[in-house]
Amino acid sequence: MKIAVVGLGKMGMQIVRKLVEDGHQIVAHDVSESATAEAGMHGAHQLNDKQAVVNAFGETQLILWLMIPADFVDTALNEWLEIVPSGSIIIDGGNSDFRLTAARSKLVEAKGSTMLDVGTSGGVWGYKNGFSMMVGGNEPAFRTIEPILITMASPSGAYAHFGPSGAGHYVKMVHNAIEYGMMESLAEGYHLLKEGHYKDVDLAKAAEVWQHGSVVTSWLNDLTRQALEENPELEGIDGFVAESGEARWSLEAARAKQIPMPSIEASFNVRLASQKGQVNYATKLLAAMRNKFGGHVINKDI
Amino acid sequence: MKIAVVGLGKMGMQIVRKLVEDGHQIVAHDVSESATAEAGMHGAHQLNDKQAVVNAFGETQLILWLMIPADFVDTALNEWLEIVPSGSIIIDGGNSDFRLTAARSKLVEAKGSTMLDVGTSGGVWGYKNGFSMMVGGNEPAFRTIEPILITMASPSGAYAHFGPSGAGHYVKMVHNAIEYGMMESLAEGYHLLKEGHYKDVDLAKAAEVWQHGSVVTSWLNDLTRQALEENPELEGIDGFVAESGEARWSLEAARAKQIPMPSIEASFNVRLASQKGQVNYATKLLAAMRNKFGGHVINKDI
Repeated sequence: MKIAVVGLGKMGMQIVRKLVEDGHQIVAHDVSESATAEAGMHGAHQLNDKQAVVNAFGETQLILWLMIPADFVDTALNEWLEIVPSGSIIIDGGNSDFRLTAARSKLVEAKGSTMLDVGTSGGVWGYKNGFSMMVGGNEPAFRTIEPILITMASPSGAYAHFGPSGAGHYVKMVHNAIEYGMMESLAEGYHLLKEGHYKDVDLAKAAEVWQHGSVVTSWLNDLTRQALEENPELEGIDGFVAESGEARWSLEAARAKQIPMPSIEASFNVRLASQKGQVNYATKLLAAMRNKFGGHVINKDI
Repeated sequence: MKIAVVGLGKMGMQIVRKLVEDGHQIVAHDVSESATAEAGMHGAHQLNDKQAVVNAFGETQLILWLMIPADFVDTALNEWLEIVPSGSIIIDGGNSDFRLTAARSKLVEAKGSTMLDVGTSGGVWGYKNGFSMMVGGNEPAFRTIEPILITMASPSGAYAHFGPSGAGHYVKMVHNAIEYGMMESLAEGYHLLKEGHYKDVDLAKAAEVWQHGSVVTSWLNDLTRQALEENPELEGIDGFVAESGEARWSLEAARAKQIPMPSIEASFNVRLASQKGQVNYATKLLAAMRNKFGGHVINKDI
């Protein structure tokens, strides 16, 4: 398929590489010239100008994969809507608020095009392992882009369509809220091993044993194991932990439906408190985990 | 090796089978004659009388693996200590309070024997996949029983020695506290999918996608997927969720060391409230998960 990938950050660049290598024709766009240049080296058609991206599709409709921070989606969407031909498919692959997605989708429909939301997990490992993708929106458009999803999921990722516009972002939002709670549970436990009753418990060894046949066996625990092996004292990590919206929105959505989420709420509050200086071994470990799965900068990513 | 396994419940019987099949000589003891009879069918030497167990070892010291509920350990230990020859090794493989373990170990030492604590995870899957084992206590005794641990860990489990008496139960206690928090995080998230903004989200499909390349990929999520595929509405599950001490002790230990554990504490409180009737889709899912990994009865296990 021919598709334009817009936003060549950690996730976008991986998507470009993966799609190019599976034989798709990729037009890569970013405001950063060094980013488009890198995409060009990976075999994409690099373009810094939006109109040039549209022109690259000739007379045909575009398939446009936006992989940009949630805060920039409205601006980018408005700019693209002015120039893409009707009948195009615009995909929001980022972590947008599902309530905004549903509204944006109507805007896109009013212009004769279609919007899909594809919540995308896999962090910096998606290129190698395959992405985990949660899709919402118009089902025929989903079928149209399925060859792209198949490529992105290979070899061991997966994708599915979950409902109308916003449903993909909703499922991804819930995924990330669970992620917050699971990370916090692990971090609290390792903190209790580190500063608890027994001195000199080998935390990396505990992580290794737990990764083999125990009930907490998980990718997050395995990443924790790696972090602890490399840096047992978590030296050089301040312990400020960013939050990127999904847990906050989950808690808002839960309140609206009177669904209790006390563990996830606690994990969210720990992150907020960490940003105000309440840091400890547990919050350092959270930062180390985020670095391992998402490539997030350990100390400045707030 | 020759070893007596005492307590032939879900875990003990798996241990008997696994050790027998790897060529160890097993003496199996339980107060229940049907349990010892089953162990006999698996190839163990079945004995209902404690003195007969001691006699089965002739003049030599015993290696005794206790796999009994935490509440029964004191009584059992006192009875065994009266009849085992000094120099024996007594292993507490259950989920005992680490503070009691350290005290019991001194009692055993006063009788000239040695006690090891082996926190054992793997639920009803340990026989097939191998157990995950956390050992505390005298290191030479640990080396003595290592052939047993090697058998029990195969093919994909693991074990390690973590420190003096109680350290194994301590690490297992922390493991279970993390388990509570991870389970609760998953349950809260699926609850928000089930009763949230979008109707008819396919929860089993979400679990399946999340199990492939997402950050929450975990054994617990995979068990949740199985439970949701088999029974999407969790029909016939009351939603009362048992707690077996480890999270409670973890919170006590954390308080003593001023270590905050808000997510795990919240998960513990949800279980307590469930026992007083505050049940919902999330607590039903917790009960379903416990059934999947531990074979726990879904409705009566409080």
